Amino acid sequence: MADISALSLQQRAALGSGATFWTTTAVDGVPSIVLTDGPHGVRKQSGSATDHLGLAASEPATCFPPAVGLAQTWDPALVERVGAALGDESRSLGVQVLLGPGVNIKRDPRCGRNFEYYSEDPLLAGTLGAAWVRGVQSRGVGASVKHFALNNAEYDRMRASSDVDDRTLREIYLRAFEQVVREAQPWTVMCSYNRINGIYAAENAWLLTDVLRDEWGFDGLVVSDWGAVRDRVAAVAAGLDLEMPTTGRVSDADVVAAVQAGALDEAVVTLAAQRVARLVQRTTENTAGNASFDAAAHHSLAREAAAAAVVLLKNDGGLLPLTPSRLAVIGSFAQVPRYQGGGSSHVNATRLDIPLDEIRRLAGPHEVTFCPGGSTPDAVADAVAAAESADTAVLFLGLTAEEESEGFDREHIDLPGDQLSLLREIVAVQPRTVVVLAHGGVVRLDTVAELAPAILDGALLGQAGGGAVADVLFGVVNPSGRLAETVPLRLQDTPAYLNFPSERGHTLYGERMFVGYRWYDARGLDVAFPFGHGLSYTRFEYSQLQVDDDLTGLRVSVTNTGERVGREVVQAYAALPASEVSRPPRWLIGFAGVTLAPGECQVVEIPVRRADLAYWNGRWVVQGGDYRVSVGASIRDLRAEATVHVEGDAATTPFTRESTLGELLADPIAAPVVMAAVADVMPAGDSAAGLGVDLLRMAASIPIERMVGFSGGKVSRAQLDELLAAINSRRS
Amino acid sequence: MADISALSLQQRAALGSGATFWTTTAVDGVPSIVLTDGPHGVRKQSGSATDHLGLAASEPATCFPPAVGLAQTWDPALVERVGAALGDESRSLGVQVLLGPGVNIKRDPRCGRNFEYYSEDPLLAGTLGAAWVRGVQSRGVGASVKHFALNNAEYDRMRASSDVDDRTLREIYLRAFEQVVREAQPWTVMCSYNRINGIYAAENAWLLTDVLRDEWGFDGLVVSDWGAVRDRVAAVAAGLDLEMPTTGRVSDADVVAAVQAGALDEAVVTLAAQRVARLVQRTTENTAGNASFDAAAHHSLAREAAAAAVVLLKNDGGLLPLTPSRLAVIGSFAQVPRYQGGGSSHVNATRLDIPLDEIRRLAGPHEVTFCPGGSTPDAVADAVAAAESADTAVLFLGLTAEEESEGFDREHIDLPGDQLSLLREIVAVQPRTVVVLAHGGVVRLDTVAELAPAILDGALLGQAGGGAVADVLFGVVNPSGRLAETVPLRLQDTPAYLNFPSERGHTLYGERMFVGYRWYDARGLDVAFPFGHGLSYTRFEYSQLQVDDDLTGLRVSVTNTGERVGREVVQAYAALPASEVSRPPRWLIGFAGVTLAPGECQVVEIPVRRADLAYWNGRWVVQGGDYRVSVGASIRDLRAEATVHVEGDAATTPFTRESTLGELLADPIAAPVVMAAVADVMPAGDSAAGLGVDLLRMAASIPIERMVGFSGGKVSRAQLDELLAAINSRRS
Repeated sequence: MADISALSLQQRAALGSGATFWTTTAVDGVPSIVLTDGPHGVRKQSGSATDHLGLAASEPATCFPPAVGLAQTWDPALVERVGAALGDESRSLGVQVLLGPGVNIKRDPRCGRNFEYYSEDPLLAGTLGAAWVRGVQSRGVGASVKHFALNNAEYDRMRASSDVDDRTLREIYLRAFEQVVREAQPWTVMCSYNRINGIYAAENAWLLTDVLRDEWGFDGLVVSDWGAVRDRVAAVAAGLDLEMPTTGRVSDADVVAAVQAGALDEAVVTLAAQRVARLVQRTTENTAGNASFDAAAHHSLAREAAAAAVVLLKNDGGLLPLTPSRLAVIGSFAQVPRYQGGGSSHVNATRLDIPLDEIRRLAGPHEVTFCPGGSTPDAVADAVAAAESADTAVLFLGLTAEEESEGFDREHIDLPGDQLSLLREIVAVQPRTVVVLAHGGVVRLDTVAELAPAILDGALLGQAGGGAVADVLFGVVNPSGRLAETVPLRLQDTPAYLNFPSERGHTLYGERMFVGYRWYDARGLDVAFPFGHGLSYTRFEYSQLQVDDDLTGLRVSVTNTGERVGREVVQAYAALPASEVSRPPRWLIGFAGVTLAPGECQVVEIPVRRADLAYWNGRWVVQGGDYRVSVGASIRDLRAEATVHVEGDAATTPFTRESTLGELLADPIAAPVVMAAVADVMPAGDSAAGLGVDLLRMAASIPIERMVGFSGGKVSRAQLDELLAAINSRRS
Repeated sequence: MADISALSLQQRAALGSGATFWTTTAVDGVPSIVLTDGPHGVRKQSGSATDHLGLAASEPATCFPPAVGLAQTWDPALVERVGAALGDESRSLGVQVLLGPGVNIKRDPRCGRNFEYYSEDPLLAGTLGAAWVRGVQSRGVGASVKHFALNNAEYDRMRASSDVDDRTLREIYLRAFEQVVREAQPWTVMCSYNRINGIYAAENAWLLTDVLRDEWGFDGLVVSDWGAVRDRVAAVAAGLDLEMPTTGRVSDADVVAAVQAGALDEAVVTLAAQRVARLVQRTTENTAGNASFDAAAHHSLAREAAAAAVVLLKNDGGLLPLTPSRLAVIGSFAQVPRYQGGGSSHVNATRLDIPLDEIRRLAGPHEVTFCPGGSTPDAVADAVAAAESADTAVLFLGLTAEEESEGFDREHIDLPGDQLSLLREIVAVQPRTVVVLAHGGVVRLDTVAELAPAILDGALLGQAGGGAVADVLFGVVNPSGRLAETVPLRLQDTPAYLNFPSERGHTLYGERMFVGYRWYDARGLDVAFPFGHGLSYTRFEYSQLQVDDDLTGLRVSVTNTGERVGREVVQAYAALPASEVSRPPRWLIGFAGVTLAPGECQVVEIPVRRADLAYWNGRWVVQGGDYRVSVGASIRDLRAEATVHVEGDAATTPFTRESTLGELLADPIAAPVVMAAVADVMPAGDSAAGLGVDLLRMAASIPIERMVGFSGGKVSRAQLDELLAAINSRRS
């Protein structure tokens, strides 16, 4: 590695900002590298010149399922394989860092960029994000976990502050980042545009240094989201290493001037430059092999991942898989599929499976008619007639690209009204109707679920989604995808409904840690489809749940009691009903997929990390107590339950002047001492009968220090301190 | 008034703290005065000695309906008369300051002290609180508006911080205080126990000085809640004038020492002492008359107020008023009524109306049997038999004193299970069953509403509630009370459900301004009984709504179309559907009661204050636009609607470097200038087709200053500043 300390201050500053929109600056001994958009494909700008906003057309690359689809696989091994393929494509395209994964929590379904994120649950997001990083980095290409942190809306994303309490921050919004950093050691982390409790992520020393490096042990580089740096000097001081894109050296000059003026420690500039050099070294030291990628093989992998991502939401009467019959395929998405989201992640796909073509391929000799549908009476009449004369209708519904994208949020979660009207008319004539859904963000499904006997939810499936949908429709693939996000009944039911998006530059995370299923469970709300939900063409039974002492893991027997090979995703949830602090009614602590032949039984083992039981109380604390462990096929389809005692982290907090009478009287050592000391001040309970209330209950909240005042000077502060010291010494 | 500046520092400090639990300190020329608990009666400790916690028995005084009941009258004139009577009783008992009214907002039904507060709505609370202050102070007795501020839970009330954003603070939690201070000039304000955004109310200079005095023009004295001062020096510096109760001069010494050490400005000690002396002067300068009070007359007033407070929640088939018939009165509350709450407001009533006796008095010759009910089979069997053999059953249900009080919060809002069982058995044999409810906090009523054809809700009615209930049951009084708080279907539906009470010393006001009906409307939630609801024995029709230009007031014709004289409470709500900032779906802007004979029609006029249209944006701002005005008998029983344009407050905010492209491009003057300047950086929309998104929509959130970076140095900061200056000068 180059000797960074030998470089001039100007050179060191230059290492810390881009040379172009997509490249770092080369200085003596440190070559330039290319960073480019992911996460579900490589968006490498074409040609050597780039425009100022990175908008030019990009090289062809495989468009794998976007995170919203990939997450529905609940399959880290598959995600890791996709990551490795993305690493190969990056190498092939001359890209050293691929900007992904996005592990932000889906706080609100309206967030325009939800399709780039995995889940409403931090363990699921963190597990899949770590797998993606392992895959990409196994090929010598750097990952960039993003957007760090609390970038949960697009509206005013470059100014708004995400205002959040420490528990929520740690337990929900930083949790997946922490897991990815600790488990997969990504080479870079990308800081987000927004402010966090008032401070820009790029300038947030607590976030970028105290938490990320000092607590989590991150040893990589922090890069800004493109254009996220408002004040390079403040950012470098906070721990930002690389500003992207180029500023034409304007911000380098700011850094040099700040050092010269004594306003910025030169050592942090050097350290940032060293981290850039280290990243360059990491991403260039092992460049043998993989100069090209096998587009056909990657397309196959994309199809495998897409098929695994399809969620069978509903299948009344076993309508699916389709039996050989006449089909009416309806909806323009069957011909022009919606398969990825808009914005910086938009990939120039190497090829594209057309659902209608793939359906025709698998339908064999049976007639497949197609109508695009639409809102005109003629189009509707054609579609209805086609549906009526077929044996089964397959109706493609979903959101268009115009309705959702990076850069703006949705204002509602409804499917287009003309689609629902069409569905209504079709089911009226054709009870055997299958709906296939495409959308980046969650859509309201109560009407669809009420009308359609069978629903396949593809979310966004990438370039091979057309084939994947056909595979699932015809049973070539038995669906095993699971929802990574709750589908609510109404937008008004969602946790952040009244606190989204930002207003006057602030978003209050008022629902705290009750995000996603944590909210619907705690509020006792019905949902359209619960977190973890997904049906199969076979059936699974659970038995013999065994939980290890101290909840370090669990095992459950799962049997395929149906007729087809299938994969079950076993989910494990914990609860602590007697918790003294608020906890969600249950939360995910692990999951595992198992593929079983008909009649086959396997013991599924799920290890549980103690960290996933903890809550944040200034540090991670595992409460002692009886935890209820549930396993099942979704958070609302629990099949087995057990209770296990977990030893809590030891903690005896000394009493202080601020301790209340109630706290002291609840302690067996403190109680008699305190009662004797305050006897003169605090009359016996019945003398308070005039207040119509139990005196001790009413007085429980009084901090003991206030008794100095209430005693009218009879108990002095010195006496109180002596008394507390005596109690504390007897307790320790 | 005594010359305070001539007093010694020690004397001035002594004026600022109590001599005993209930009295101020007398110094040369400034006599001691008595402050004592209210608000619904005078709780004057018996004898000259007091105990250390103010718990001794108190002198007899009229127990008027507690605030929870009084608020249900929606009648400021009546509340003012009650206040005047309380003032007379205070004078008679030698009390100079009566500690009330409590205008805290009912944020959560579990708050143990809700019975001392008026409403979930700040306008209703502020209007009634101001009336109470006017009444009390008309008798030369000082009021003390409390608990200032954000004391919305009892749990850990002396330590916990209410963490709240500025809009919510101003629009909801400070609003009623502001109204009372501005309209009624209370002589004292009582600061609360809790912290506000981390700072104790007693030490909160922003609250006690900047807002209360400088913004609102408060010219009275700030007294601490009893024991609320943790650090007298910090409190005096913040604007606290009087610490109560006595600390035996301990805190006076702290003040003197701090002044001598230069840590506290002596001038603030002097100012506080002057305010104490001024309060003493105000409350003692006019002591002629009213040396005793007419207990019988006050009992009559208490009965009038109680009857006006009764809300007829339901009356299927016109079951009420009772016709002469055999009655079964069931429930121990008929014999031992629940009529006030526990804690510091507990009054030693001068007399007590027993509901059963009053019912018997009005029932005439008809048989009235009584069974206490209860949970034993015998008690239930007796009650059921009595109900069955009567023509009508009147069942008293509610919460016992043990279930709710100052000092602790409830953990649920259910009525006792044995009461609901009893109700179920009784309605099974007696369809003509009337339920009479007593409770301090809201209770869940879905089961009661489902089972009972008629429900009277008295909340807490004070010492004359027994007679008042009888009056309403028999139609001596036609009920006109209205709910001052929404009755939710479930606790899980309530706004602060997951953020109540405090945890680790903090309560996040995560629901922001969506409290009470604002929440249920915005979330589209069904409720058991809506805000403002209350039936009558007659019927009212609304017609001819007329709204003044600029919404300065409105008029609507109301006709009594029934058979009895009755009082209608006409409520006016505003909405601003096109608001750019979040507003509740509708909010109360005024109300008026009108009493009409059968067939009579009157035009009810409701003035609207412009201030009640405003929202907080660093200052009060009235948005311009089309406001929808609704009038009706409850927030969910709206009878007439109109739209009126309101001119907004002028506001042209200059553009800054932080203004976004979207904001600039939306301005007709800025747009062409900005487009020209960034043309080189920002390509035409179609060149971004590779991103699958409309470029300008995606780029709208970019602050213009970031274009300096995106341009790669082509646009300099100086050029940007020039451009903004040019735009701003053309706009102003």
